[in-house]
Amino acid sequence: MTRVCPAPPDTEGQTPVGLFAGKHVLAELEGVDETVLDNADLLRQVLAEVLTQAGATVREVIAHSFEPQGVTVLAMLAESHASVHTYPEIGAAFVDVFTCGDKAKPELAVELLSGALGSGSFTMSTVDRGHGAADTRS
Amino acid sequence: MTRVCPAPPDTEGQTPVGLFAGKHVLAELEGVDETVLDNADLLRQVLAEVLTQAGATVREVIAHSFEPQGVTVLAMLAESHASVHTYPEIGAAFVDVFTCGDKAKPELAVELLSGALGSGSFTMSTVDRGHGAADTRS
Repeated sequence: MTRVCPAPPDTEGQTPVGLFAGKHVLAELEGVDETVLDNADLLRQVLAEVLTQAGATVREVIAHSFEPQGVTVLAMLAESHASVHTYPEIGAAFVDVFTCGDKAKPELAVELLSGALGSGSFTMSTVDRGHGAADTRS
Repeated sequence: MTRVCPAPPDTEGQTPVGLFAGKHVLAELEGVDETVLDNADLLRQVLAEVLTQAGATVREVIAHSFEPQGVTVLAMLAESHASVHTYPEIGAAFVDVFTCGDKAKPELAVELLSGALGSGSFTMSTVDRGHGAADTRS
């Protein structure tokens, strides 16, 4: 398996990605139907789809269902990883999308996920990680 | 599988954990031996060990090795998740540990991981996520 970052040295016309750097989006979804948030198969499928639509390369997705409710989904990406932790009892979920390079758009992945799950609202902040990146944007 | 958070309502003597809230530690390790950072089996084992030592409950760990180098490890926790993304060519790694509740100590997990991998230095910041938590501490 080839990792997206560091990129080949011939990448042109983009922000250099051969760096120890990435964008980590931390998000919270609210107002989601509780049956959606307790459906591990649906969440796996939707997360993989929105990540792909947002330009990421999904390598593996695992999910666990908890008792009495709640699901965690982790996605291994060529660009890094994504996660969803759901709380059906309050219609909420924590979401992470961490990517390197310019191809994957982590904020778009969160927006698509929020739409696909029918959330009433979501908040997100982006942390620029690694060399030369220390700011947090909301 | 029982999720750690929300906690049973009879939890006493601790910060309430039956909330949509958690601590997400974002860290970068540097000065790590490149052979260590390219050894997926070692990284899986060490990550699971330090998470357990730090009070977390590890449910599943997956790892992928990339070409020409680099490893990603994802750990499913009862408390949320942890990840390691390595860059052997520069001796560096991104680390995340996201936990809810009071039992698991995500900063301790990062400190133990840094020690176990023999990193020359590490930085970390903690993001308090969810309801009633919006600050970032470094």
